[in-house]
Amino acid sequence: MEGKTYENKIVPRSEDYSEWYLSVIAAADLATYSPVKGCMIIKPNGYAIWEKVQEVLNKEFKKKGVQNAYFPMLIPEKLLTREAQHVEGFAPEVAVVTHAGGAKLDEPLVLRPTSETIMYEVFKDWIHSYRDLPLLINQWANVIRWEMKTKPFLRTTEFLWQEGHTVHKDEPEADAYARTMLGVYEKFFADYMAIPIIPGVKSESEKFAGALRTYTCEAMMQDGKALQISTSHNLGDNFAKAFDIKFLNEENNEVYGWQTSWGLSTRSIGGLIMTHSDDKGLVLPPKMASIQVVIVPIIPNPDSRAAIESAAMKVAESLGENISVHVDVRDMRHGEKYFDWEKKGIPVRIEIGPKDIEKNSVVIVRRDTGDKEFAPMENLVEKISDTLEKIQSNLYDRALAMQNENTVTVTNWDEFTAAIEDRKFVMAHWDGTDETEKSIKDEIGATIRCIPFDSVEEEGSCVKTGKPSTRRVLFAKAH
Amino acid sequence: MEGKTYENKIVPRSEDYSEWYLSVIAAADLATYSPVKGCMIIKPNGYAIWEKVQEVLNKEFKKKGVQNAYFPMLIPEKLLTREAQHVEGFAPEVAVVTHAGGAKLDEPLVLRPTSETIMYEVFKDWIHSYRDLPLLINQWANVIRWEMKTKPFLRTTEFLWQEGHTVHKDEPEADAYARTMLGVYEKFFADYMAIPIIPGVKSESEKFAGALRTYTCEAMMQDGKALQISTSHNLGDNFAKAFDIKFLNEENNEVYGWQTSWGLSTRSIGGLIMTHSDDKGLVLPPKMASIQVVIVPIIPNPDSRAAIESAAMKVAESLGENISVHVDVRDMRHGEKYFDWEKKGIPVRIEIGPKDIEKNSVVIVRRDTGDKEFAPMENLVEKISDTLEKIQSNLYDRALAMQNENTVTVTNWDEFTAAIEDRKFVMAHWDGTDETEKSIKDEIGATIRCIPFDSVEEEGSCVKTGKPSTRRVLFAKAH
Repeated sequence: MEGKTYENKIVPRSEDYSEWYLSVIAAADLATYSPVKGCMIIKPNGYAIWEKVQEVLNKEFKKKGVQNAYFPMLIPEKLLTREAQHVEGFAPEVAVVTHAGGAKLDEPLVLRPTSETIMYEVFKDWIHSYRDLPLLINQWANVIRWEMKTKPFLRTTEFLWQEGHTVHKDEPEADAYARTMLGVYEKFFADYMAIPIIPGVKSESEKFAGALRTYTCEAMMQDGKALQISTSHNLGDNFAKAFDIKFLNEENNEVYGWQTSWGLSTRSIGGLIMTHSDDKGLVLPPKMASIQVVIVPIIPNPDSRAAIESAAMKVAESLGENISVHVDVRDMRHGEKYFDWEKKGIPVRIEIGPKDIEKNSVVIVRRDTGDKEFAPMENLVEKISDTLEKIQSNLYDRALAMQNENTVTVTNWDEFTAAIEDRKFVMAHWDGTDETEKSIKDEIGATIRCIPFDSVEEEGSCVKTGKPSTRRVLFAKAH
Repeated sequence: MEGKTYENKIVPRSEDYSEWYLSVIAAADLATYSPVKGCMIIKPNGYAIWEKVQEVLNKEFKKKGVQNAYFPMLIPEKLLTREAQHVEGFAPEVAVVTHAGGAKLDEPLVLRPTSETIMYEVFKDWIHSYRDLPLLINQWANVIRWEMKTKPFLRTTEFLWQEGHTVHKDEPEADAYARTMLGVYEKFFADYMAIPIIPGVKSESEKFAGALRTYTCEAMMQDGKALQISTSHNLGDNFAKAFDIKFLNEENNEVYGWQTSWGLSTRSIGGLIMTHSDDKGLVLPPKMASIQVVIVPIIPNPDSRAAIESAAMKVAESLGENISVHVDVRDMRHGEKYFDWEKKGIPVRIEIGPKDIEKNSVVIVRRDTGDKEFAPMENLVEKISDTLEKIQSNLYDRALAMQNENTVTVTNWDEFTAAIEDRKFVMAHWDGTDETEKSIKDEIGATIRCIPFDSVEEEGSCVKTGKPSTRRVLFAKAH
């Protein structure tokens, strides 16, 4: 992740998708490179999106009984190694503190790559009886995973996320809760981020290190690649056994707890950018925009400035408290302002000039379609609310249409490879073995994104080996 | 900071203030020890207070034009050393990452003890002309300072805070902004935390490492000791010169920027606990309580449960959306519930039993005074709002009265030492030298908390050396 300037130009998607993505981030001023390898700086425009994520998810989590807490970011190395699969999965990625306060530490401390181990070490003291269950904890935090290839938002050495961690009385309850929280994510992506999700189960080789089962939200980006945009894990009693999380059940027997963990990170912002943006820059769904409407006064000469800006302010006020609006009174040509707000993805632009004031109307321009229309200055609030809703649903519909158009069902290896090369989401039969999964990945670079919840049981044969299969799974190349 | 259980008992303040503090935290379930030395776990009850802090301050900051952003927590060691005083102040406290991703790092990375250096290294790229100023950035983050003696909230190896960082066109503007932000803190403490503040300037030896001038909010705890509860720094152009933060001014000359930084941490929660709590446990000001009112149904026999709980729910609903209320329907005796909510500091308890329902009234109990009164069940919202306001102002008044009663003005060394031994805040003349300040500290353990803004200019002689002095300063022992 090295610094590069795009001088406010957006590289066309068709030319270079990866450069397009980076140039959108630069133009919308969302993030920038930092003096630390692999770490980005989230600038105010980018952080404002994260604050929306926090605001919405906090409300949804609280409805599900979740409470926020905060655990140390430093983890004693021996804790990380307690659960065998977990340490195997994370050990290669950790950063280690060996010195502090001017001295060598007796035991190295690891910067949390995720917090199962540090949390579960104390959960055992919080849970004594079935009455203490379910325990439903969430934390908003920074985590560190030493990544070789990084890209802003999508994969950075440090990232921000929330991680939920729960303990339940039995496996069915834990599994249901993991599914519930995946549902919270799915709904958040659909209703707020306008990203249609394919929810499903990860294959054994793609599941979280230490989990019994990983549920995932997979989304299709505009280049046809998949993005794993959030996951929820049924941890079984793996960690409970490693960390001795026991409780007295209703029959007064001491039994192990059953756990889940689930997370959503700043990677979701990468997904948001890649789903909706275009060759003019960022496109924000109205529900994720901290500024939904920008009003640009058109000032033909300095004498008219006061009157036009005052009219713009009045329009802004008339939009009320439920629409967030900004009046751009910078000393800059209005054309430049259009360009500036366009690349920043503000959903609606209102233009007000002398002629509009005469006619008591304004011009409304949609960021998603570029459509322009005149509207009377009075009762604008209804018109604008309606336009924002239309943009919100259009973005979702557009992304869903793209996903549908680019998802294909194949029956043999030739079709499979052609579709993968063509950057499709491919529903195909697979024999269920890690071996076949790996050979497909090695040969063509496609991975099993998930076994979609709605994949029906049917007889079939694996596209690679011809061996029997009971349901199709989703293959794609992935970010 | 080692683990200890208090079995839900509060150690009386008169017996052992420090143990009282720890037992209140345990009883109110605010925080607990972690497997990492010096790091605490902030439990949901404690974190809910921090969320209130964030909610209020975010609103206030935004009114002052501040935008939130996020910078990496890892800082290349060479950046930290760029400003001479700064590195001298922080080097002894840093934790260092030497290994990551399975290999030794070429250059060690320091965990941020504060973010001046990592931010200012990029600020220089964000600022070109006076039009880019002022730059007003804030970040909510965790920081690490390797502390030898730790205590929950007051001093922990990792803590949460906000750190604001600004760049201005000249020194007067920067100084005014630093003062403005101190004012934001002072008002927050007065209006929300009900903590009266003595604002002032730090002496040279107590100022922030790298600052030109440090402004501070000092508060008196119930043991008469001072707590430095937030600070705001005028950084002058020290960092601008070290990090090459320049801009073209209106005269088209390239000049250095002038900076401020200001922070408030989870330490403020320690101050909140120590200011208001009593021998029954935590006392929360209503504006900082996530639950302001708890309703406890009094159920004499199982048959009456449904009717009484339903009445309790109705009362809860009648309190509307602006009062946060919780109905405690746990299967537990009401006396135990009283005790439980008392130690958690919930401002108001409403009791509803069969007799109350007959008389169409409820019992209202104030946490701060223990006062009980009957009130008609109708139109409770006004009564409760009024009670919450009374509690809020009573807590402030009580703390202010204590501060006034325990602040003395002295004229000679005997009076000075007697007052310090008696745990007073002492206004005394001082000759203005580091040397005298240090000798007072070494001899009696008192430090200059600040030169209060309202300390008037007057002729006097230093209590220690008899040398001339122009104004009294505030001495006290400190946490």
